[in-house]
Amino acid sequence: MNDKKASQSELAGIGRRKFLNTAALAGLTVGVAACNDKPAASAAPSAAAPAAAPAAHAASEVGKYEVAPGQLDEYYSFSSGGHSGECRIYGLPSGRLFKRIPVFNMDCLVGWGVTNESKKILGTKPDGSLKYHTGDTHHIHPSYKDGTYDGRYMFVNDKIHGRLARIRMDTMETDKIVELPLVQGFHGTFPDKRDPVDPAINYTTRVFCGGEFAIPLDNNGKNMDATADYRSIFSCVDAESMEVRWQVLVDGNCDLVASSYDGKLACTNQYNTENGVHYEDMMSAEMDACLFFNIARIEEAVKAGKFKTYGGSKVPVVDGTKAGNPDPKTSLVCYVPVGKNPHGVNASPDGKYYACSGKLSPTATLIEHDLVLKWFDGDLKDAREAVVAEPEIGLGPLHTGFDGRGNAYTTLFLDSQIVKWNVEAAIKSYKGDKTAQPVVDRLDVMYQPGHGFTSMGETKDADGKYFLSDNKFSKDRFLPVGPLHPETAQLIDISGDKMKLVADHAVYSEPHDSIIVPRNLVRTRQVYDIDEFPNAVKDAKDCRVERKGKKVTVYLTSQAPTFGLREWTVKRGDEVTIILTNLDKVEDLTHGLAIPKYDINFIVNPQETKSVTFIADKPGVYWAYCTNFCHALHLEMRSRMLVEA
Amino acid sequence: MNDKKASQSELAGIGRRKFLNTAALAGLTVGVAACNDKPAASAAPSAAAPAAAPAAHAASEVGKYEVAPGQLDEYYSFSSGGHSGECRIYGLPSGRLFKRIPVFNMDCLVGWGVTNESKKILGTKPDGSLKYHTGDTHHIHPSYKDGTYDGRYMFVNDKIHGRLARIRMDTMETDKIVELPLVQGFHGTFPDKRDPVDPAINYTTRVFCGGEFAIPLDNNGKNMDATADYRSIFSCVDAESMEVRWQVLVDGNCDLVASSYDGKLACTNQYNTENGVHYEDMMSAEMDACLFFNIARIEEAVKAGKFKTYGGSKVPVVDGTKAGNPDPKTSLVCYVPVGKNPHGVNASPDGKYYACSGKLSPTATLIEHDLVLKWFDGDLKDAREAVVAEPEIGLGPLHTGFDGRGNAYTTLFLDSQIVKWNVEAAIKSYKGDKTAQPVVDRLDVMYQPGHGFTSMGETKDADGKYFLSDNKFSKDRFLPVGPLHPETAQLIDISGDKMKLVADHAVYSEPHDSIIVPRNLVRTRQVYDIDEFPNAVKDAKDCRVERKGKKVTVYLTSQAPTFGLREWTVKRGDEVTIILTNLDKVEDLTHGLAIPKYDINFIVNPQETKSVTFIADKPGVYWAYCTNFCHALHLEMRSRMLVEA
Repeated sequence: MNDKKASQSELAGIGRRKFLNTAALAGLTVGVAACNDKPAASAAPSAAAPAAAPAAHAASEVGKYEVAPGQLDEYYSFSSGGHSGECRIYGLPSGRLFKRIPVFNMDCLVGWGVTNESKKILGTKPDGSLKYHTGDTHHIHPSYKDGTYDGRYMFVNDKIHGRLARIRMDTMETDKIVELPLVQGFHGTFPDKRDPVDPAINYTTRVFCGGEFAIPLDNNGKNMDATADYRSIFSCVDAESMEVRWQVLVDGNCDLVASSYDGKLACTNQYNTENGVHYEDMMSAEMDACLFFNIARIEEAVKAGKFKTYGGSKVPVVDGTKAGNPDPKTSLVCYVPVGKNPHGVNASPDGKYYACSGKLSPTATLIEHDLVLKWFDGDLKDAREAVVAEPEIGLGPLHTGFDGRGNAYTTLFLDSQIVKWNVEAAIKSYKGDKTAQPVVDRLDVMYQPGHGFTSMGETKDADGKYFLSDNKFSKDRFLPVGPLHPETAQLIDISGDKMKLVADHAVYSEPHDSIIVPRNLVRTRQVYDIDEFPNAVKDAKDCRVERKGKKVTVYLTSQAPTFGLREWTVKRGDEVTIILTNLDKVEDLTHGLAIPKYDINFIVNPQETKSVTFIADKPGVYWAYCTNFCHALHLEMRSRMLVEA
Repeated sequence: MNDKKASQSELAGIGRRKFLNTAALAGLTVGVAACNDKPAASAAPSAAAPAAAPAAHAASEVGKYEVAPGQLDEYYSFSSGGHSGECRIYGLPSGRLFKRIPVFNMDCLVGWGVTNESKKILGTKPDGSLKYHTGDTHHIHPSYKDGTYDGRYMFVNDKIHGRLARIRMDTMETDKIVELPLVQGFHGTFPDKRDPVDPAINYTTRVFCGGEFAIPLDNNGKNMDATADYRSIFSCVDAESMEVRWQVLVDGNCDLVASSYDGKLACTNQYNTENGVHYEDMMSAEMDACLFFNIARIEEAVKAGKFKTYGGSKVPVVDGTKAGNPDPKTSLVCYVPVGKNPHGVNASPDGKYYACSGKLSPTATLIEHDLVLKWFDGDLKDAREAVVAEPEIGLGPLHTGFDGRGNAYTTLFLDSQIVKWNVEAAIKSYKGDKTAQPVVDRLDVMYQPGHGFTSMGETKDADGKYFLSDNKFSKDRFLPVGPLHPETAQLIDISGDKMKLVADHAVYSEPHDSIIVPRNLVRTRQVYDIDEFPNAVKDAKDCRVERKGKKVTVYLTSQAPTFGLREWTVKRGDEVTIILTNLDKVEDLTHGLAIPKYDINFIVNPQETKSVTFIADKPGVYWAYCTNFCHALHLEMRSRMLVEA
């Protein structure tokens, strides 16, 4: 409606939105699937007769956001993959998918879940099989230094099994995974940006983890009816050791997580402060909360032994419930009331504010950092006084990005829009200035946006160039591919006064959150250091078979276009370990090793070493072959594993 | 060199190519990794200072191949995923990835390898766990009718474990998998296009499968030294039942597969006709072969009982070796000699020719269909007389696509080029016409192309619009993402006289082969039919828990934003089966079900039913939640599974 060139469909959207704004809010909370109305009404896509949707950007701008052959993208986007269990690296503005990073999922291409090294990171059962094959990555955030990304690590959660993973940013591979005790439904995560006490530590040393589902603290199947005793847990993991440092018992269900720029606070928005176990109970209260954790006080409490442990876990758990913290001056946690069932909390790049979205309230709540600190000092009567603005922005507000120029951009799930609102105008309006107009622009997206984020918007270097809207429904935006549609990542240029939709990128389900990082902040290695691998086979001459009883080790190298052994012989029933080092040093010259019927499949990058262990339970000739096209004689790159009967 | 605007890097490439053309061929065959020279020489990519590569298409064409927001692609591309074990659906020209189709891999997002239904298709061990977790898809081809795609099925191979999978094209999901007996390294596959005998059957009823690795026919670990007795097997699978109809024992190693337009012949190019087990033996002969199978004769032989069975398999195996087929008039197989270690055979859209590439010979061999039939009639002295052209086209020729206008486009792995050559000119030149110039254009690609294919080029409707070059090395073409680079799928406009590079698409490793299909040939369903699932829970009122001894069945429905049961109770040690039907009918309204610590994760599309079975071995409260963002109250869509101690 702010764009005079608005198409018919956009105008139709306005009518619908106005209706919802005035009439549908009450219905929503009793479960009317309002968000289904629009998709249902849109015509089913037909490949033969595609929708003649107009290009969203004017003819003069055609090609402006195109990345021509041979050109490089300006930005990386690192994205979670939802219940695919992985993470992904895209280029922007092109939307090219550069890499999938296997995290909690199996990826037989790289051998994730196949090799000994990856199994050790993923965790195994006593019989050596993987403990879990599934995961649900929602939020991915890199480590910080001086308030911006330092290119060391990225951290990502697994909602299903309550795990936190770390990805090395030099190799873009997962290197550690920890399972959080007492946690089910680990949702939001965020690293800290500096130490709350030691000014020399101006970089990430902690990662905060919001536990969503409340369960009995001793979840042993004997106390399941005492639902009032169910609790959620907020956790702190050491960024280096990846061990859980401490946990906090809270009221309500943690959702998203953010951290302050001064290191003093972590926060999480909460729905179901009612502690309900049924749907309608989770929505009965008119207000929920945004919780702020006083990191220094929590760590003092742990140091002073003021904690308990539960259910066999040795991790100290402090009491962060309201009942356990009656006095702000000693409280570990500050509960700031916000609109109903919020989904999303984001810190502004200047470090001053947190925007917490309403979801079932058409508002975003703006909380001032200094006022929260004031509450902890006992200088505020009520935590609600930390709220400095609460603009009405539209239906189903979820996540907010900032442009570094004083504007916030919030996804509106129900309205299928991005709303741009001005922070200072919102504060003025909240103070009673009726001339202040917080909302400055709206843009329709297709359809139902979940997460949205700005380029560098989670750092002090927010550059206000792009906003990416990860939409949950693509419907008619792409050629149909059966019942499972892709989602849309819509790229929006936010550098001007008006938001401009510049690209529809199709994405495999289901990115929840991402970050956009300029290319100069990422420094990867293209070739491994052979000395990093203690078991490396450093010379083709070292290839051999060693036997100790029934345990056989095959030392193997790859160098295009041959493996270091033409054949190796083992006996049926042997426990065989193959250690493979790729001696090729040329960038991009990756080899693979697959063994038919033995379910072995993995790659080795230049100068990398990987290993697999298996029982040689099938006698016969098995051709171990290179899977990763490496050379004109790639097909001929194969060796025989001979398993004697 | 054909383009006056050739950049410096292109010019450098010419120098290198000329050198290779004149000097490096001999060296190649003794294992000099000539293909590594170019990548090694190129500078390592630096994200901070990207290569200032010029856009390949002129400024006037900027945006011509862009698919603006709201616009739909013209073509689908269906692509294999190599050792990722999956297939993929892209849009062209945009390069957008619409869908991953899990085939031989696990995909925890959709529950492939998790649900009972997918486990049944994938195959399990006696303990119920998956038989294989890995696969290596190389070639994907749809079913035919009247010489073009009919939109029913796609077939794709697994090289590792010797399996053929079928994908339904209405839902784009894998529905059957068969493991071929006696086969290791199942490489090429192609459906037939009509029946060789019955003219009424003008559609696909057979799928041909080329077995690559030669192994002992009884692979029992007792005869492994008798390498001269190792054999490869060519198989025929019934397209409907997906059972193996018959197999053929052959000399040499089958590689790619093609089928004739009249249904009479299937063919496979062969390397290692020497039957060597060592690298240098596989390359000792100057010529290898392209094999043609006489389908009608083979099926008569099977009918007449002229077959054997091996190694416990009941599939009839006929003898297709040279020794077993001395007389062309009764021969089942015709061995046409072609250049050294060929890689690739493709039928021309007019049904007249097969192009078989040299790989270690700088030639493509053109074989005439009618002449092969003549050989089978005893009317050719020598099978080599079926060759009608053998143009010298460049170094490392692999795969050929056709434009339907009489031109062929072959990938040159070593030259990093696509070469366009004219079929009639090649035939004239072969006949001695020195004025005939087969090669009409060359285009550098980045780098080392493997497969290349034209839009509809494997059908009689080849439209000559696009060629896609799936390159094995991307090097400096994209932002660096660590040691594992993406590959490049470069889109080339072939509609004019000169090839034009129009887009660099990044692809996750490792597409081997793909097809390009206009959107009007694909007709998918967006919503399932609930009646297709015999175990569907058709009404939320039918949700319940049924117990028979220790076997418990949970009947469950999903309808945004709730599951049909708020909680269900089982006992520790129960074998629990959850059957979940998604009652939502709205297109794109998919739900998911994940259960923490129980490693359960899958989605249900609108009106679909899926199930999982597990042992309830962990007591306590477990929140089963919806993983697929479905509604504003998606987070609240969760139910409790109570496992009594």
